[in-house]
Amino acid sequence: MSINNLGIKTPTAIIDTDIVENNLKQMLAKAKENGLMFRPHFKTHQSGHIGEFFRARGIEKITVSSVMMAEYFASYGWNDITIAFPVNLLEMEEINRLAESIDLSLLVESVDTLTQLQEALSSKCGIFVKIDAGYRRTGVKAGDLKTISALTETIHHSPKTPFKGFIIHNGHSYNATSSAEILKLHSKSLENLSELYKWKEKHYPESVISLGDTPSLSIADNFKNVDEIRPGNFIFYDIMQHYLGSCSLEDVAMAVACPVVASHPERNEAVIYGGAVHLSKDSINHKGKTLYGRVAMLRQNDWRILPAGNYVKKLSQEHGVVHLDDGFIQQFEPGDLIMILPVHSCLVPSLLGHYMSTEGETLSVMKNYRDL
Amino acid sequence: MSINNLGIKTPTAIIDTDIVENNLKQMLAKAKENGLMFRPHFKTHQSGHIGEFFRARGIEKITVSSVMMAEYFASYGWNDITIAFPVNLLEMEEINRLAESIDLSLLVESVDTLTQLQEALSSKCGIFVKIDAGYRRTGVKAGDLKTISALTETIHHSPKTPFKGFIIHNGHSYNATSSAEILKLHSKSLENLSELYKWKEKHYPESVISLGDTPSLSIADNFKNVDEIRPGNFIFYDIMQHYLGSCSLEDVAMAVACPVVASHPERNEAVIYGGAVHLSKDSINHKGKTLYGRVAMLRQNDWRILPAGNYVKKLSQEHGVVHLDDGFIQQFEPGDLIMILPVHSCLVPSLLGHYMSTEGETLSVMKNYRDL
Repeated sequence: MSINNLGIKTPTAIIDTDIVENNLKQMLAKAKENGLMFRPHFKTHQSGHIGEFFRARGIEKITVSSVMMAEYFASYGWNDITIAFPVNLLEMEEINRLAESIDLSLLVESVDTLTQLQEALSSKCGIFVKIDAGYRRTGVKAGDLKTISALTETIHHSPKTPFKGFIIHNGHSYNATSSAEILKLHSKSLENLSELYKWKEKHYPESVISLGDTPSLSIADNFKNVDEIRPGNFIFYDIMQHYLGSCSLEDVAMAVACPVVASHPERNEAVIYGGAVHLSKDSINHKGKTLYGRVAMLRQNDWRILPAGNYVKKLSQEHGVVHLDDGFIQQFEPGDLIMILPVHSCLVPSLLGHYMSTEGETLSVMKNYRDL
Repeated sequence: MSINNLGIKTPTAIIDTDIVENNLKQMLAKAKENGLMFRPHFKTHQSGHIGEFFRARGIEKITVSSVMMAEYFASYGWNDITIAFPVNLLEMEEINRLAESIDLSLLVESVDTLTQLQEALSSKCGIFVKIDAGYRRTGVKAGDLKTISALTETIHHSPKTPFKGFIIHNGHSYNATSSAEILKLHSKSLENLSELYKWKEKHYPESVISLGDTPSLSIADNFKNVDEIRPGNFIFYDIMQHYLGSCSLEDVAMAVACPVVASHPERNEAVIYGGAVHLSKDSINHKGKTLYGRVAMLRQNDWRILPAGNYVKKLSQEHGVVHLDDGFIQQFEPGDLIMILPVHSCLVPSLLGHYMSTEGETLSVMKNYRDL
């Protein structure tokens, strides 16, 4: 089987399943070494088929980021799911339906929302409290034990809402510019959690403190005050994670095969069928350049990553402009496929509808909207 | 009918059909006044239903940006379609199938690609030559009459490839920072086309010079050296076009209804279910701030746009963080819907799968991938 023979005609995400296996093995080993529970986040791959790689390693508990995603994975037989996203009160009908058949946990961050949720719930749902350990997107500040107590007390008012613990996502690690900075943010977060950890060990020893974010979980070795981890992006990684120091380029499991449609050797540029509607518009700034992806060359069963000077420099709706150094620009002609390693792999699946594995299998991907 | 009663539970694009009608009327009037043929680009709305607004005004010729999009609109009865994207030689099977049943035109920019295309074509296809009038994405330079002659001669070698004309897209207008700059770029492009215009009037008077890009076509009044226009974005416009000076905020026909999931009045922030997978990651920088959207308040049958200080300041995968000024932050609670006017409306349709009109109708949208 060769990728070139898969009949690819339009932008198509290819998944190297050997790399997927290896990334999973590494993260599982880290969880085990540190005595951490492992509840991987499925928001990156969004694929029932990729989920099977996890199931094959005995994983039964997962994290998702929407009710739709929970519905999708429940349909693939997952029955212990945490929706690590502040509960959307407009989806109570769907939440109640789901909670009847699986072990579902939800996320709250205010007594008001919690009370409305308790009134609207018809089945039992585990409750996590969202904690802000420094990211400042949402959640109760880790040190605000008064609000946290009010929440846990309200949670315990109802038998429908068993208390599960605390969820933290240190998304500010994505704004770091070095591994050292990520480690510093991570240490600071753990420090911010120490009071909460003592408090919960005293009052709710069965509950867990659950930590997300692939950069910290890839780089750090200290997980004090943490019981559970929820990495997601690590399964594919991407160029952003590479530049953050979370992974090597060889750990990136996803590349998008794009047809070359024009070549301009005089300015070292190739134009590809592959734009913002295929790769998303996420970018990184590196050494004064804005990158929308790195470039690789298709081989029989995988790809060879080209040096850093070869990159996607511009994305419009359906076009991408790729800078290719001398020696490489001559190797791509209209009608060839070029491989693009995306900046942010989590944003690609819903754009491309499905994956192809390096073995030539089609891997299904969920949709981010409900059919009407 | 009230938008609030449409049963919206997850991020959903709403289209104000009155605004669509008005935008279409304005652009048609401009084409008529300037004696220009009108071949609107359907890449913005990507919707068979929105296409009907055009058909109702007698439009029969359209532009698309992919073979898939041509297939989609052909299935809605459009039979004069130009694919204004450098021909993708990997889709010859699909192109040949389509060319059997509709009047299809393709875009080339090199003799090599053209020759391969002519060999692979089994049906007749009109050919446009891609001209670069200053954008430098792709195409033959407007002044390079030698290459242009070589192309038109090769085109005429085959009875399968009737010559249609020249296509120009001045995408650099999107990088302008003012209307004055857009007008300057537009004038410069027209000037760059003058020699070509004379040449084609002499040799191929039946062929057309066709110009795209909504900013120039919205702002300019001079269309010398141009026969046809292909605006696309104007049908919905968006925040980017507003800041470029192409439209007023009241001309923006699309807003995405997003559930509020958390409120942090102490820092004037609301968290919404609505992230990069719903709104795309395009942004604009305005007065030192990065904006991912503007904010509006739902009314009975439309929306009220809030002052400029209220905007989407951050987008993660599924979350958005909205800054709301005092007085507004208090008006949005978890469980409410908030309206987001997107930065780049062309990138939204394929993310959300369908639209709802302000009349409560579901409007279909194409997919950017083929089902397997």
